[in-house]
Amino acid sequence: MAIGILRRMTSLKGKVLIAQGGGPTAVINQSMVGAALEARRFSQVEAVYGALHGVNGVIHENFVDLSRETSDHLERVAATPSSALLSTRDKPDAEYCARMFRVIKKHNIRFFFYIGGNDSSDTVRIVNEEAVKEGYDFCAIHIPKTVDNDLMENDHCPGFGSAAKFVIQAFTGLNLDARALPGVLIGIVMGRHAGFLTASASLARKYSDEGPQLVYVPERPFIPEKFIADVDAAYRQHGHVTVAVSEGIVDEKGVLIQTKLSESSERDPHGNVLLVGGALGDMLVATLKAKLKIKRIRADTFGFIQRSFIGVVSDRDASEAREAGEKAVHFAMHEGKSGSVAIRRPVLNYSVDYELVPLTSVAGKTRHMDDCYLNAEGNGVTEAFYDYCRPLLGSNLPEAHRLREMMIPKLK
Amino acid sequence: MAIGILRRMTSLKGKVLIAQGGGPTAVINQSMVGAALEARRFSQVEAVYGALHGVNGVIHENFVDLSRETSDHLERVAATPSSALLSTRDKPDAEYCARMFRVIKKHNIRFFFYIGGNDSSDTVRIVNEEAVKEGYDFCAIHIPKTVDNDLMENDHCPGFGSAAKFVIQAFTGLNLDARALPGVLIGIVMGRHAGFLTASASLARKYSDEGPQLVYVPERPFIPEKFIADVDAAYRQHGHVTVAVSEGIVDEKGVLIQTKLSESSERDPHGNVLLVGGALGDMLVATLKAKLKIKRIRADTFGFIQRSFIGVVSDRDASEAREAGEKAVHFAMHEGKSGSVAIRRPVLNYSVDYELVPLTSVAGKTRHMDDCYLNAEGNGVTEAFYDYCRPLLGSNLPEAHRLREMMIPKLK
Repeated sequence: MAIGILRRMTSLKGKVLIAQGGGPTAVINQSMVGAALEARRFSQVEAVYGALHGVNGVIHENFVDLSRETSDHLERVAATPSSALLSTRDKPDAEYCARMFRVIKKHNIRFFFYIGGNDSSDTVRIVNEEAVKEGYDFCAIHIPKTVDNDLMENDHCPGFGSAAKFVIQAFTGLNLDARALPGVLIGIVMGRHAGFLTASASLARKYSDEGPQLVYVPERPFIPEKFIADVDAAYRQHGHVTVAVSEGIVDEKGVLIQTKLSESSERDPHGNVLLVGGALGDMLVATLKAKLKIKRIRADTFGFIQRSFIGVVSDRDASEAREAGEKAVHFAMHEGKSGSVAIRRPVLNYSVDYELVPLTSVAGKTRHMDDCYLNAEGNGVTEAFYDYCRPLLGSNLPEAHRLREMMIPKLK
Repeated sequence: MAIGILRRMTSLKGKVLIAQGGGPTAVINQSMVGAALEARRFSQVEAVYGALHGVNGVIHENFVDLSRETSDHLERVAATPSSALLSTRDKPDAEYCARMFRVIKKHNIRFFFYIGGNDSSDTVRIVNEEAVKEGYDFCAIHIPKTVDNDLMENDHCPGFGSAAKFVIQAFTGLNLDARALPGVLIGIVMGRHAGFLTASASLARKYSDEGPQLVYVPERPFIPEKFIADVDAAYRQHGHVTVAVSEGIVDEKGVLIQTKLSESSERDPHGNVLLVGGALGDMLVATLKAKLKIKRIRADTFGFIQRSFIGVVSDRDASEAREAGEKAVHFAMHEGKSGSVAIRRPVLNYSVDYELVPLTSVAGKTRHMDDCYLNAEGNGVTEAFYDYCRPLLGSNLPEAHRLREMMIPKLK
């Protein structure tokens, strides 16, 4: 494949700087620790620094010495969710980059590893382009992470498997709850532009009457009348329904359903509308209650805990996040290349390879769910999605068990 | 102790009926399986039935044969959250009880075990009193469960420890998230009248700057101005704040903050206002945003997943739920008594005993947090609460680890 803009500079010597950007995941620290421990092995590395709060820590010269963290302690940090180096939503412009490079040069930082999503990969692209402009020998590598699973070039992203495991465990519970006290339970799941995480809820289905019977993702227009009819039909069939809805669902014109509700929409520096709070769920409940005679209709918005909850991790996701960090160091030290580490899956069930791809093919772009993963009706997933998602959950996914319910004959 | 209304009737022979009422917990099936397996050992037990959907399954004669479930399968069901026998919010009146007894007599059911909270214990009280009135030899035992931990006579209730573990793991994540991307994160926790579950969030604190720095429970009036000042002070001190708020917080007149928001308040058959949706959290965010210049202020409402999530269980809670079910059978078979199983803690750190107490001392009553568990300001818990709560979480509570952050000196 073409990796045109990558340059060889294996003679590079200097310091390593690692940082984390964007939202936390359960395994982002695996990538950080993977990169830090691996970087410590190379003789051309003078020291391994961590920048606090991502690129913001670079301009403010807030560096911690990762060379002096014990490996035992780093392993504990690796197993902790969220960004141990803290995070940022800053989006560098030319002036911001100039400030960064003054600091980077002063410390003789020659290797920069930035762990983040598509906004963060765009940050790496900008920083890398500034380095080229300034003629500064510098290797900048983006290490993927995102619970949304929406990075181009990647079969899947570190962080997704663990978040999916959380969502599946949550829906396993909602399924049990909705059957015990019959009704309709809606779970609002993260996913701004891509429905992967919401779709993963489907893997909570074990028994034929279980939900989520309905799944609504940003890749298909959300039509309230269809939604009401879908829920009505599923409730009539099963007597209990769970529904997985992406926070980022849009109408037929592509307008966010959530922004239709709120007068003022807060945005982050990357221009993304903030999708927070319980308003979308509450609105969907009201929509159903107005039309259906079902007593128990409720919505839970999973919120931040789905990306930061401690103790629910896909072991495969953790391994791959770790490997992505290590591989980034290999690409830098052995090949002297800048780029973005991408996870490939040569065999569906299941192995992975890591490749370095051009930053421009990932930066600021969004991957959406493949058409083959969504059903024709636009309210559920296909078997192909199950096959795609299942291996990412790792081992030991908790499983629900029902009584076999051998009925006692009624007496006269 | 006085257990006046309990009667001896050890010569009783007949069928056992087990049912579950109210909201699910992570370990309610441990109690069901504990009772079922233990009951199967007694010669005077003709068969062990389960009623589907609690007392509703009794009037409709919807019984399953628990004598014919394999013990292996029952163990798997025990480890599954929510009510395997399904649940109900029905509150029996005299006519409802009369219908129940027609069915109960027809099947020669002589032992009734009902697993539930204070509404369910009131159901057992009513059923038991009807049996006495009818002169039907019958043993009715309430087995405690509730994530709210608000049953009188109990040191703590099965279900609470696991829900507390979920809340602590959630707040451990929120703490990490709020520090990584600095701001104020509010978690709305279940707790209609009692603040135990919300207070348990405090055990997520590991580092001195970590939250929840603020905890608001129904036992203390919620004063918006004080809330704003508290958050402002905590944010100035730490730069990041997490706040635990009970869904059931009330103003100085005892009016639910949540009902002040919604025009029509839905109620369950027990007269409880339904506390659902994200409205309370969204309102608290708006309250803070109107007065404080903090950019990131968000609220997550944990919702139903905190009581039904699979895979987060306190092993101690599971053991005790199991024992409570077994002990209920012992009280019935060996002593022929009706009543409510209560968990005592003779030693703070830590052992438990089980006693049978009169149904009237538990039924329909609510236990609140002891004064000594809440701080003088009414916005946090004391060390005494930590000592109370810690043993209930069992083993293997996941722990967060931070980098030690050895700062690199800034260069000139």
